[in-house]
Amino acid sequence: MGSIAPHVAELDGSNFNITRSTNLRDVPLPGSAEELSHSHCTDHMVTVRWTAAKGWETPEVKPYQNLSIPPTASVLHYATECFEGMKVYRGYDGKLRLFRPDCNGERLNNSSQRSSLPGFKYDELKKLVAKLLQIDGPRWLPNPGSFLYIRPTVIGNGPHLGVQVPKEALLFIIAVPWPDFTKMPKDPQQAPKKGLKLFASSPDTIRAWPGGFGYAKLGANYGPSLQAHGQAQAKGFDQILWLFGQDRQVTEAGASNFFIVWHNADNGKLELVTAPLDNQLILPGVTRRSVLELVRERLSKGPVGQLAPLEAVERTLTIGDIEKASKEGRIVESFVSGTAYFITPVAMIRNENTDISTLGVNDEPAGYATLIKSWLEAIMFGKEEHDWAYTIEEEKQ
Amino acid sequence: MGSIAPHVAELDGSNFNITRSTNLRDVPLPGSAEELSHSHCTDHMVTVRWTAAKGWETPEVKPYQNLSIPPTASVLHYATECFEGMKVYRGYDGKLRLFRPDCNGERLNNSSQRSSLPGFKYDELKKLVAKLLQIDGPRWLPNPGSFLYIRPTVIGNGPHLGVQVPKEALLFIIAVPWPDFTKMPKDPQQAPKKGLKLFASSPDTIRAWPGGFGYAKLGANYGPSLQAHGQAQAKGFDQILWLFGQDRQVTEAGASNFFIVWHNADNGKLELVTAPLDNQLILPGVTRRSVLELVRERLSKGPVGQLAPLEAVERTLTIGDIEKASKEGRIVESFVSGTAYFITPVAMIRNENTDISTLGVNDEPAGYATLIKSWLEAIMFGKEEHDWAYTIEEEKQ
Repeated sequence: MGSIAPHVAELDGSNFNITRSTNLRDVPLPGSAEELSHSHCTDHMVTVRWTAAKGWETPEVKPYQNLSIPPTASVLHYATECFEGMKVYRGYDGKLRLFRPDCNGERLNNSSQRSSLPGFKYDELKKLVAKLLQIDGPRWLPNPGSFLYIRPTVIGNGPHLGVQVPKEALLFIIAVPWPDFTKMPKDPQQAPKKGLKLFASSPDTIRAWPGGFGYAKLGANYGPSLQAHGQAQAKGFDQILWLFGQDRQVTEAGASNFFIVWHNADNGKLELVTAPLDNQLILPGVTRRSVLELVRERLSKGPVGQLAPLEAVERTLTIGDIEKASKEGRIVESFVSGTAYFITPVAMIRNENTDISTLGVNDEPAGYATLIKSWLEAIMFGKEEHDWAYTIEEEKQ
Repeated sequence: MGSIAPHVAELDGSNFNITRSTNLRDVPLPGSAEELSHSHCTDHMVTVRWTAAKGWETPEVKPYQNLSIPPTASVLHYATECFEGMKVYRGYDGKLRLFRPDCNGERLNNSSQRSSLPGFKYDELKKLVAKLLQIDGPRWLPNPGSFLYIRPTVIGNGPHLGVQVPKEALLFIIAVPWPDFTKMPKDPQQAPKKGLKLFASSPDTIRAWPGGFGYAKLGANYGPSLQAHGQAQAKGFDQILWLFGQDRQVTEAGASNFFIVWHNADNGKLELVTAPLDNQLILPGVTRRSVLELVRERLSKGPVGQLAPLEAVERTLTIGDIEKASKEGRIVESFVSGTAYFITPVAMIRNENTDISTLGVNDEPAGYATLIKSWLEAIMFGKEEHDWAYTIEEEKQ
């Protein structure tokens, strides 16, 4: 059943078979077409084979290459697949860091078992990621203040076409230069963008359901949602805001979690609200969790600069609540969080035929997103020593 | 958006680039371990590449081989994948036939677009399948009364890791010898099995939901369901019976559609009942549709042999309805239908702690499943001329 059986080998991230690339790839320039393609990976990849009979084999580091997959493989037919999104950061002190990698390890282990793929000890994942970056970090991520995107993935790659729990699997990790949208050159013809435009999903398109798998990072949550995503993009929107249920609960935005800062309708208190995890509809984002923890630690007790204190609340909110708050002038700011989008303000939501502004006073975000983002960046890029950062020792060039 | 754009090439199943295998594979013996592995395909496969820029390329027939897939491919991360299950039958007259292949073509086209993969003219699919069997049929399916399983699949195999509508895709078709469970040698130590044992899903595991994609044959419907399937098999059951909603509606069984023959609780009429398609929860099975059409044509007006006339009804039924009917002795028979399981009686359902017998009088199925199966087999194997059969002209050996 994909869980850890005592008689088979466990995943061990401390021992590797390494094959060096002898044909190093070009490192794409920031903002180049190659980088924008999200397809140009670093020189190496990590792979770890698993079989039901023997468990996890010795991890391999090898030259980045296509995978050879049987046409009958489970992953191609039955979506036995799950992944993580992480980044590795080049600090201003020259060190490489991961951000809370054990959170990703834990979630990938959960997602893998939810897909009937093998489980593993969650804290091994960061060792596998670190090994890849020890080798590729020096050449691919030389500049302080920049990052690479890391994609650990587990797939059912055995050759058995019958509908069944996979007997073979492959964990692989790749690293890819990713455009930093916050640093892209602005188009001088266009007004500066104050935030994302979200398109609220219609009742006939539902991302996840109680008893389903919306809480796990399975491929099955993504492919079926691309149709609505593509339609929203064609209309000029950035992401879908996924609603659920007859009361049109706000769950998550595209592949990110959704936050709103507003004055509570009942008592006027300033709150940061995001959807709760308990009904298992939404992905428990690592950035989501970090935002909540930072706000509770640093913003709940008193003001920070110009910004008033804020209470972080995980509570069901509906699109009707947001529309009402917008009309009543109670919205202060809203943003999404995630590894790919990081912390990005939201300017508006279109729900059916209504456009709802989610900016604050004078149509500007108040600055909470900017503040929280700066706190996170300080940890990621080593301006602040913090136990959420995991430092990678690299090979000398 | 995956739909057919006028300026790009459409799928054309009348023109092929053919590369013959020079290293023919062993044909597994019926009942052999190789056949039971569901992984030993025929000598060739069909592939058709698609790009957003140019549309469908010329179909290729080539030696069966592993696919070379970029580690960044959409199908490995976002489950951009869908498939069909079909069979090709060697008739008693020596001819090869497909069964209603345009129904599969239509469904694959729908599934592909639901996954944001490209659409195509549905009636081209059968030409692609036929070409593969023209070449591999003589050697791989020589014996009248036998079949091969055919798996057409569409995947997003482009190298772009960003979450987006795929810009590249591959349609491939493979053929694999599949065990015929109705012909497997019986274990003399075991009592003969009267039918499948189904395990009703618990409220915390849902296969599909309104606004989701249960009606399309996407990989995303399968992987997340394997966990419950594996747990049910470990308890000695054959398949999950997927229930939905607070009223515990019976939707479908594993990867097959569920039917029950009973006396209606209100008027005592003999009915064949299966779940309706209108809420888009269940897969619109080709065998399901054929069962309903045959019963309406041949069993609704008068008795056939010993069997009383039967009205076919598509209507929501709950597990409570079945339990009540079982207690009141109103169940006559029940069965599942699908390409893999064909028509197979169901002996019982376990719902929570209750075992419900779904056999009829004297704990035997009444014989409707056997009769309907014989009608379908007559069409598939050419004992009866019928426009549901599509004959393939093979190459001379």
